[in-house]
Amino acid sequence: MPASTPKSSRRVFLSGAAAVTAYFWIPKPIKGYTAAELRAMTIDTKVKPGISKWDLDTPALCVDLDKMEKNIATMQATLKKNGLASRPHTKTHKTAAIAKYQMATGSIGICCAKLSEAEAMVANGVDQILMTTANPSKSKIRRAMAISKAHRGFIQAVDEEQNARDLSAAAKEAGVVADVVIDVAVGTRSGIPAEGALALAQVIDKLPNLKLRGILSYDGGGQHAKGFPQRKERALTSLAPNVQTYEAMKKSGLNMEIFSGGGSGTYNIMQLIPGFTDVQVGSYLFMDMQYLAIGSESGDPVYTDFAPSLTVLTTVMNNRFPGRLTTDGGAKALTLNTPHAGVIGEPGMDYDAGSDEFGGIRFTTPPSREYKIGDKLEVIVPHCDPVVNEYDQMYGIRKDRVEVVWEITGRGKSQ
Amino acid sequence: MPASTPKSSRRVFLSGAAAVTAYFWIPKPIKGYTAAELRAMTIDTKVKPGISKWDLDTPALCVDLDKMEKNIATMQATLKKNGLASRPHTKTHKTAAIAKYQMATGSIGICCAKLSEAEAMVANGVDQILMTTANPSKSKIRRAMAISKAHRGFIQAVDEEQNARDLSAAAKEAGVVADVVIDVAVGTRSGIPAEGALALAQVIDKLPNLKLRGILSYDGGGQHAKGFPQRKERALTSLAPNVQTYEAMKKSGLNMEIFSGGGSGTYNIMQLIPGFTDVQVGSYLFMDMQYLAIGSESGDPVYTDFAPSLTVLTTVMNNRFPGRLTTDGGAKALTLNTPHAGVIGEPGMDYDAGSDEFGGIRFTTPPSREYKIGDKLEVIVPHCDPVVNEYDQMYGIRKDRVEVVWEITGRGKSQ
Repeated sequence: MPASTPKSSRRVFLSGAAAVTAYFWIPKPIKGYTAAELRAMTIDTKVKPGISKWDLDTPALCVDLDKMEKNIATMQATLKKNGLASRPHTKTHKTAAIAKYQMATGSIGICCAKLSEAEAMVANGVDQILMTTANPSKSKIRRAMAISKAHRGFIQAVDEEQNARDLSAAAKEAGVVADVVIDVAVGTRSGIPAEGALALAQVIDKLPNLKLRGILSYDGGGQHAKGFPQRKERALTSLAPNVQTYEAMKKSGLNMEIFSGGGSGTYNIMQLIPGFTDVQVGSYLFMDMQYLAIGSESGDPVYTDFAPSLTVLTTVMNNRFPGRLTTDGGAKALTLNTPHAGVIGEPGMDYDAGSDEFGGIRFTTPPSREYKIGDKLEVIVPHCDPVVNEYDQMYGIRKDRVEVVWEITGRGKSQ
Repeated sequence: MPASTPKSSRRVFLSGAAAVTAYFWIPKPIKGYTAAELRAMTIDTKVKPGISKWDLDTPALCVDLDKMEKNIATMQATLKKNGLASRPHTKTHKTAAIAKYQMATGSIGICCAKLSEAEAMVANGVDQILMTTANPSKSKIRRAMAISKAHRGFIQAVDEEQNARDLSAAAKEAGVVADVVIDVAVGTRSGIPAEGALALAQVIDKLPNLKLRGILSYDGGGQHAKGFPQRKERALTSLAPNVQTYEAMKKSGLNMEIFSGGGSGTYNIMQLIPGFTDVQVGSYLFMDMQYLAIGSESGDPVYTDFAPSLTVLTTVMNNRFPGRLTTDGGAKALTLNTPHAGVIGEPGMDYDAGSDEFGGIRFTTPPSREYKIGDKLEVIVPHCDPVVNEYDQMYGIRKDRVEVVWEITGRGKSQ
């Protein structure tokens, strides 16, 4: 695989995107519909047909529905071929409507990173939930067991003996036997180190109000390792102790029906892990500049497995300084993640969202056209998860028209 | 003034804070009240007295009310002495309740960065608004003129002739003569360069439905220049062309009752600018790690003019890896801004919020005490404005007890 920098892969990709989107065109005059106006035109989330995405007030978070649906189909087809299931992570989209679509298209459940996010999903009709984070306080444990009691598809991660005992006590108090998985650490962020996991499993197996379902092991950083061979090598190496633990648990007669983990960067690698059952993919829906830079199995420096469906529309505020444009999408619209946002159709532009309220674009080669104040740009976001978390709604777009307005159900649910 | 790095000033400050807060103490057991539970206990935003901040579910955004009120009093006293007014920027707090408190304690109005933020303030009873950003589209111009019609305290920034003509046309359509100020650029982000501003002012002066009130000039980057002498030098230098323009406008008989700008880093410098009327301060309410590092007029490497009132409470999730703690406050709770969040009472800890859902703390010197899973930490945020924008509510704390729950009225209003 040829070496590539994020910059070169961004340039390659954005030029490619411009070529693919042959219908790339900005109509005038734009109208500037606000979120409130669009909600007023909406019946059961479906928007009155015909409104162009270019007419949205900006910054606007948009998802191209054809692309997102194709990404989901690609994921499901690949996993089916490889004998794995998908249990997508809602930390990416935070949107009950999307979780429901994932469930309807073959996912076996969803994952939630925070308890308040899980509560928001449950309250909106999504209840096959793997809570991937152990709950660190007794109040959160009680809330988790309340979900478990009401929704039998709820599975709670646990990573410590005291936490397991507290969970069992709360489950008893709630009158349930609660499903749990052990979070077996990869790295030093969360979970129990692999060498301690078997002993914890044996403790859990004897606790009266917990039912062990298996383990989870998630290597967050491993998703973005650049180059497919590098990601594969890292996944096999970093999970090796966890596989040993998994096998020791199985050998000792424990129930190991779940071995969950992986993500959008390793979805086509995890079938190589013995016993592995399902991937906790999230970003495959949307893509972003970070994922586009990780490279494909084919050796392409751009990650082409999934199409970038998530974009932010932004408006030019100032064009009077040579080699620069100021837009209305800053850090509150795009976050400070890197690589920078990529302007579709303008591979020569560098978009810096480092200012809270304004985007700062610089270019050294001339843009494809002259940009006037009020003109709009569409950008691929740096990192999808935290960008989605900045918005109250997401516009579902099909063929450049607004089809739905989705409330971002779990926005700000970081508790 | 002694040279200082952000790291050294952070250490100095956080040790100092630990010494000052002699009552620093975390009670057990914590209860973990959710935002919904607290809202249920709230009458007219006032919370049933007695709930400790340590009982809040985390991550929780808190403001110490005694400190914030003292910061406001300090600002008002200094400005009064220097003959300036305050027109605080709501982009920092996004909270109508705080804007009302600022108005009640002597501010002449507020500033808004985005039109949707201004609309949220107007809808919540705050209507003396200087809209500091020019509105780039006809739809936004119409919305701005709708505010102008209903609220005579509304003033709109303008930075371009066509924009001024569109504004005047929309004002005519709305049946108002709208107050405007010219945004005269400092740097290359927004506004009209100083040399073109007089001509624009003369155009505006002749437009039938606009009334010129003066100019604004904001140097965002200048607020964080390290060292008081450096900030002073930068303010005087960067604004020199704008002062010339201001004086030329005045000489030509234009109405120049407003010359607005400056911020929390230059509030005690702007009185040196001829004709200057009011400062657009925001962060003085809260402080953050960025401002603490800019240094005081006294030469102290820590900026001590205002007390850090804004904090995030976070919970320890994992303590089993040597020299590390994992918390529940990641990039969605604290943003990626630098310097990193500062853990109060633990100057030896480095808090990296680079992970979306988790905070990663490292320490090489032993912490002041052992931290167990479920224990809480209180951190000063990296940069207050975008952190506030991550939360739906802010807890007002007095003497470590929750006094009010404020809705963050303008959260996510980046349009």
